[in-house]
Amino acid sequence: MKIIVLKFGGTSIGSIQRIKKVSKIIKSYSKKYRVIVLSSAMSGTTNKLINMSQKISKNFPDSEYDTLVSAGEQISCSLLAGQLLSNGIKSRSWMGWQIPILTEGSHKYSRIININKTKILRFLKSGGIPIIAGFQGINKDSNITTIGRGGSDSSAIMVAKFLKAERCVIYTDVEGVYTTDPKKLNSAKKIKKISYEEMLEMASLGSKVMQPHSIQDARLNRINIEVKSSFVRKNGTLITKRTNIINNKIITGISSTDNDAKVTLLGVKDRPGIAASIFKPLSKNSINVDMVVQNISSNGKETDLTFTIKSFDLNKTMKIIKRNKNINFKKMIFDKNVSKVSIIGVGMITTPGVTFRMFQALAKNNINIQVISTSEIKISVLINSTKVTKAIKSLHKEFNLEK
Amino acid sequence: MKIIVLKFGGTSIGSIQRIKKVSKIIKSYSKKYRVIVLSSAMSGTTNKLINMSQKISKNFPDSEYDTLVSAGEQISCSLLAGQLLSNGIKSRSWMGWQIPILTEGSHKYSRIININKTKILRFLKSGGIPIIAGFQGINKDSNITTIGRGGSDSSAIMVAKFLKAERCVIYTDVEGVYTTDPKKLNSAKKIKKISYEEMLEMASLGSKVMQPHSIQDARLNRINIEVKSSFVRKNGTLITKRTNIINNKIITGISSTDNDAKVTLLGVKDRPGIAASIFKPLSKNSINVDMVVQNISSNGKETDLTFTIKSFDLNKTMKIIKRNKNINFKKMIFDKNVSKVSIIGVGMITTPGVTFRMFQALAKNNINIQVISTSEIKISVLINSTKVTKAIKSLHKEFNLEK
Repeated sequence: MKIIVLKFGGTSIGSIQRIKKVSKIIKSYSKKYRVIVLSSAMSGTTNKLINMSQKISKNFPDSEYDTLVSAGEQISCSLLAGQLLSNGIKSRSWMGWQIPILTEGSHKYSRIININKTKILRFLKSGGIPIIAGFQGINKDSNITTIGRGGSDSSAIMVAKFLKAERCVIYTDVEGVYTTDPKKLNSAKKIKKISYEEMLEMASLGSKVMQPHSIQDARLNRINIEVKSSFVRKNGTLITKRTNIINNKIITGISSTDNDAKVTLLGVKDRPGIAASIFKPLSKNSINVDMVVQNISSNGKETDLTFTIKSFDLNKTMKIIKRNKNINFKKMIFDKNVSKVSIIGVGMITTPGVTFRMFQALAKNNINIQVISTSEIKISVLINSTKVTKAIKSLHKEFNLEK
Repeated sequence: MKIIVLKFGGTSIGSIQRIKKVSKIIKSYSKKYRVIVLSSAMSGTTNKLINMSQKISKNFPDSEYDTLVSAGEQISCSLLAGQLLSNGIKSRSWMGWQIPILTEGSHKYSRIININKTKILRFLKSGGIPIIAGFQGINKDSNITTIGRGGSDSSAIMVAKFLKAERCVIYTDVEGVYTTDPKKLNSAKKIKKISYEEMLEMASLGSKVMQPHSIQDARLNRINIEVKSSFVRKNGTLITKRTNIINNKIITGISSTDNDAKVTLLGVKDRPGIAASIFKPLSKNSINVDMVVQNISSNGKETDLTFTIKSFDLNKTMKIIKRNKNINFKKMIFDKNVSKVSIIGVGMITTPGVTFRMFQALAKNNINIQVISTSEIKISVLINSTKVTKAIKSLHKEFNLEK
């Protein structure tokens, strides 16, 4: 029998009622597959533990933070294994150290580098269903480590990799990946199949179904991921390699952001290296610059430079630029009322005229494009935030995503 | 520097405020000693986890129970270590598996058989204060085990044994061991020193300061235990070996029980083995028979048999006796309105007339003695529950415990 990995997020196991429900889902796979379960902490637990640590110190030490919060998965996994056992199904909880799941890197942000499969394989072969704690591992000194918030997805994908699972099912509280945010557009449609690359763009551009680095892990290891809901019995979205997808759509999805800010430096003295002297100190301060556009002025000696950052970085960014004496500019202006709307699809590689169709659709609706950036499978435009819904609606229609 | 073990119970670390307070207590020892801390779960946590498991199943599996509830100490220990680190004190939390603390026996009721001291000693020598999770260990298969409720005291005593600590301080929410329950007698006095043997009698007879088997562990390993409060700064009670105690009191303490029941079988056919045929099925059903008295009837053919059990075992006991056809008796009567009052003291070994003084003091107060049992250092009497306070008061005075 092939191995399948089922991962349950915090809301999926957020109560005893939910744990009972999830145990039925697990059982339904057990005739066809050898099942491995990865579980997050019950929703609310991790935040409660973090709140306690914050009351002790705003700088609660990272090493003890990892030990503290990993108790959350210990609770959920033992309850879930106990539920299965109570239903007469052979099961056992496994903490990171019991397998072990080996990580490296600093506390709070470790990476899984190895998962010993011996004990888990033996347990699977004996007919057992292991319930593995997501999010946690140990380092070479046997300290408990965690792999960052939302890390249980990564745990599941790495388990699928090391145990050579056929598929990894991410059970969550949404039904799958949608052509665009259903909260913003009623007619958004669930996507049946999406490539890793498209999903990466969707994820990093604001669709919150999965963390980008989990998708990247899956892509690198060619793990088929199915995202589906543990609350309703419906097909989800399969995230897989491009060649598995037969798709006659040019565009797969549309995403948008809510928290961008635009900064413009007017009358910047134009000399070689000026862009670097602006962006280097920002990068040093962990400020992520996204879109950049530079207009050369008529006289050729001055330039206007526009870039976008996350809006929570705005104050910090302005301070850094102001105190940097190397940058000569006449005026700095900013706009927090901007959003990035992107169309994503591998189809655009082979289809000319996509950019034109996008710009035309927006123009027809009187939506002004402020900044543009593109990649092989994505076109992003910065527009006024008030126009986001209108933009998504027109693009969704233009590229036939409603059907 | 000598090693000291400090153990904190659930109420002592029941909130973030309490954790901050406890970190100061720990610090106060660190100039004179190498300090090892054992911690229980924060009060309430364990019960909350158990309630969750009960919602899954009344027969929640023991193996997962151990994993579940041991998360409680993981939380408290990482918070406490984080607090010390935040105060600039080198510290680290240690779970049972990280040391490891090896146990054997069944889940939920395991016994500590070894504690590897290598890592803890190295950490102590580096100037660190280890915060060790009480109550938990692992078995030889690396499964998480627990050592029974209240087991953190045992953990502390075993750590003190294996690390050769000079003393084990049990911090709790009472100030120490009292001559009798202060709730029942205002003039009860804190005992400065008490022998293991006396403490064992006090504990098993109803003083709830420590579990009998923890005291037995301490006695067998000659660990000096100090019981004191983490809420007030006062001396506690030292539990130590008899030869360390110079005491001119005959009686050290008085204890009483609240939940006894007396069963009397009237007109039992007296034949050899009759007592065994009554008590064997009770023992088989884990019913603990405490005091027993048998009166031979005038004709020599019948006997009246009286014994005491815990009142929660009463219904079960009566059923077992009724359905046992081997026991011939005329009538069974019972009384739930009884209590056992005991005087305890090593002094009585060398002092004649203690029994007489006890009975006389009770008689003076019109307290009828129903059953008597004695050991080398204890005399217990069964009396009507309504007379308990009066009995304690008169005995406390008779044996000069108020001074």
